[in-house]
Amino acid sequence: MTVPAYRRLSVEQRRSQLIDAALDLFAHRLPEEVSLDGVAAAAGVSRPLVYRYFPGGKQQLYEAALRSAADELERCFAEPQTGPLTERLARALRRYLRFVDEHDTGFMALLQGGSVVETSRTNAIVDEVRRTAADHILVHLEAPEPGARLRLMVRTWITAVEGASLIWLDEGKQPPVEELHGWLLDHFVALLTVTAAGDPETAAAARRALVLERPDGPVAALTQRLLPVVADAAHLALPPESPESPES
Amino acid sequence: MTVPAYRRLSVEQRRSQLIDAALDLFAHRLPEEVSLDGVAAAAGVSRPLVYRYFPGGKQQLYEAALRSAADELERCFAEPQTGPLTERLARALRRYLRFVDEHDTGFMALLQGGSVVETSRTNAIVDEVRRTAADHILVHLEAPEPGARLRLMVRTWITAVEGASLIWLDEGKQPPVEELHGWLLDHFVALLTVTAAGDPETAAAARRALVLERPDGPVAALTQRLLPVVADAAHLALPPESPESPES
Repeated sequence: MTVPAYRRLSVEQRRSQLIDAALDLFAHRLPEEVSLDGVAAAAGVSRPLVYRYFPGGKQQLYEAALRSAADELERCFAEPQTGPLTERLARALRRYLRFVDEHDTGFMALLQGGSVVETSRTNAIVDEVRRTAADHILVHLEAPEPGARLRLMVRTWITAVEGASLIWLDEGKQPPVEELHGWLLDHFVALLTVTAAGDPETAAAARRALVLERPDGPVAALTQRLLPVVADAAHLALPPESPESPES
Repeated sequence: MTVPAYRRLSVEQRRSQLIDAALDLFAHRLPEEVSLDGVAAAAGVSRPLVYRYFPGGKQQLYEAALRSAADELERCFAEPQTGPLTERLARALRRYLRFVDEHDTGFMALLQGGSVVETSRTNAIVDEVRRTAADHILVHLEAPEPGARLRLMVRTWITAVEGASLIWLDEGKQPPVEELHGWLLDHFVALLTVTAAGDPETAAAARRALVLERPDGPVAALTQRLLPVVADAAHLALPPESPESPES
């Protein structure tokens, strides 16, 4: 393949082009399989030119690519504060899962740890993405400064989404992404509900969210699908004549 | 402090003693803060003796301590297959959280990644613990060879427990461990229930588990606490005259 003569690009454009080429390679290969020569070839430039922009070599290029991916991910989370909460969350989650699907190998290498390019800086970037995701959800729950239980709930669900995404990649992208998406949303509703059952702040947030839900929305659909499962628990319900039993 | 003369120990006893001393140090300090001198002092032996047993130095000692901790953790998960599922899970989870509490700094350093002693071997040990935990739960669910949805559910809950434990340590062990324990159990019940709502295999497993639950057990208590939350969702229920509506 003939490498075309360098196009005239500004410093910023060239830098972006190199980062895009690196991100594309790091997304689908293990970090140890990506070389500066490979990035240079993908960008149609010479290896010395890559070094001129990234004198720290592969590690610096990896961190720049990760920074760029983190910015892209954080943009996924942005949603206007209108409409039912589950529909806002469904849109953000769909964008997130598309990102996971498109950056599969790199996503796994990054999050499974032990990678050759992992440093305290790369871990800090990943943690920042998690914190940003949590902050977004808490804004939508109208609880920007939550107590311990609600914060734990939101952070744990984010961990679960990340873990489920890794498991999904590890299982050859099974079940289909639409099922994974619906199940993660159900998981959020379930976790919010059981946390609300023990924490007044979460209960208030759940109540605010529930009134916005539509009769044809995901919560209503989940409720319908839950009925036969819950019917099997009838032997656990208190008899109707003692509804005022103390909390346990 | 006078170091006592070496006690006469067999090779296996000495090795165990050194691993116990190392594990105790690695549990409460960052790996970079643990030195061979420190392990030697804690075990009351000389540094050359530590090297005789662990010629690979700190890394080898760390891996041996991690192996020992992993064995201890895997023993936490063992439970006879009798009684309600939530009570079996509650006991295993209590032992797990005690382990987390007792190995706090080491647990965080190990799982947050980027540690100086992290290698593909240490990651493999951690993955083995996760796999063992999942296998135990699937045996209790009487589904040792599960389909994609049930396997994803169990593996995701384990990820969530691990993530919540890290968050709990990060938040200065708040909320109190008993609350964390009850909430993680509620999380399991909720996740099993919503997964059952969309997957026949999980529904069958949930049904088998539910019939064993007691009216004074955790599922019944959760159900009672859920009533006021669910009452807020009344506007989402289909009218009673159309219970045969198609699934959505």
